[in-house]
Amino acid sequence: MELTDDQVARFETDGYLFIPELFDAAEVAVLLGEVPALFAVERKENVREKRGGVVRTNFAAHTYNDVYGKLSRHPRLVAPIMRLLGGDVYVHQFKINGKAAFNGDVWQWHQDYGTWSRDDLMPEPRAMNVAVFLSEINEFNAPLLFIPGSHKGGCLEAAHDTATTSYPLWTIDDATIGALVERNGMIAAKGAAGSALFFHGNIVHGSGSNMSPWDRVIVYISLCRVDNHIRRFKRPEWIAHRDFTPIECLADDCLTAGADR
Amino acid sequence: MELTDDQVARFETDGYLFIPELFDAAEVAVLLGEVPALFAVERKENVREKRGGVVRTNFAAHTYNDVYGKLSRHPRLVAPIMRLLGGDVYVHQFKINGKAAFNGDVWQWHQDYGTWSRDDLMPEPRAMNVAVFLSEINEFNAPLLFIPGSHKGGCLEAAHDTATTSYPLWTIDDATIGALVERNGMIAAKGAAGSALFFHGNIVHGSGSNMSPWDRVIVYISLCRVDNHIRRFKRPEWIAHRDFTPIECLADDCLTAGADR
Repeated sequence: MELTDDQVARFETDGYLFIPELFDAAEVAVLLGEVPALFAVERKENVREKRGGVVRTNFAAHTYNDVYGKLSRHPRLVAPIMRLLGGDVYVHQFKINGKAAFNGDVWQWHQDYGTWSRDDLMPEPRAMNVAVFLSEINEFNAPLLFIPGSHKGGCLEAAHDTATTSYPLWTIDDATIGALVERNGMIAAKGAAGSALFFHGNIVHGSGSNMSPWDRVIVYISLCRVDNHIRRFKRPEWIAHRDFTPIECLADDCLTAGADR
Repeated sequence: MELTDDQVARFETDGYLFIPELFDAAEVAVLLGEVPALFAVERKENVREKRGGVVRTNFAAHTYNDVYGKLSRHPRLVAPIMRLLGGDVYVHQFKINGKAAFNGDVWQWHQDYGTWSRDDLMPEPRAMNVAVFLSEINEFNAPLLFIPGSHKGGCLEAAHDTATTSYPLWTIDDATIGALVERNGMIAAKGAAGSALFFHGNIVHGSGSNMSPWDRVIVYISLCRVDNHIRRFKRPEWIAHRDFTPIECLADDCLTAGADR
């Protein structure tokens, strides 16, 4: 998949780019089919919610699950990011966020690069995310909320919040969020399962709690330009990876090749 | 204001009835103008959120604030409920819920009659609410969520949750909510400030936390048919009122009469 010049321009203006149904139903089924087993295992890579015992976020599945290993090398995800970041990339972080029905807790307002910079000493915001929706995301199951254009303000001041949820996060204060939303508005990223959302490392985002009866599963892959690799190994290697080998993409049909379609 | 037969039929089917902009901007300004002072006072009627110290819910303002006293006798609110309940009514409960920007906490899935029945020994669900929006309510500032038609299942089993938020509530379990939503779907009550939402005492509803920069202020007036008054005075009188005198409505312009318009 090649991004058009128009898509690149929109990404640069808004800080995100939404591609509806980048993966088809068969591919989503393959990806989603792995999730129950991944979430069921008791291992450090499964961070659970404060309440209910359900998985909040699963780390590094691409290192121990074949399907997610393929997804981390998928050309529809990697090629656009190589174009947007202008060079070879490696996997800095790989998460499957559960946001379980009834129990999925909030992600406070933050920038991902805020954490990558402060915790991992990543030199520049030459890293970004792609979110792959494995569930339909609607107004009820806690869509990602973005402040368009907020990536243009650089890395904002943040405080390390270790209390609100089960996972520590560098979060941005209310006054700053209020001023940004006043200027730029706010959007909710909704769409069909299989949709993908590319977003800048400095875009300000968050999401509410999920009180609906529908899980909201999203895979987040954070790719970093190889020459921008992290300089400090403070966080565990299964959270902030230390293998800076450039990704070599697989074939476009890698998720379903060989399977009965 | 007279409800049409069609509106009555819709209420009976859905369990709620939404009237956009039942109050105009001048009336909303009068109502909203009182809120900061009401929320600023340290008194038992102000129940605060677990975090941030902001008001979660203010009780009984109609008993000590002139403007809200008028609102509790407003014909646009009281007459429709007299029609729907089929008789004279009194004020069982009166709340202004803050759901403050950034800090407003969840209201778990519940039925109001579940509490009125269990705590107050109200004999029948011949009581209902009207919500008056004092803020614009959009997808971001935690709209009320309803399961249409859920009032038809009677009073459901519930458990007394005293842990999740700062206010105890009889809440309904996840499996029941999941089954109800599967059958009936779910709606979010959004609309302009001044809009009103009439809803059945047994309709299942809740709302998420508000992480937007916009307050979401709603007045909830719970009216009960006089002959259905509560039988037990377990909760404080400023939460579950004990004055069963039938409401006599004021004039339609009571909120702004005498003011410069």
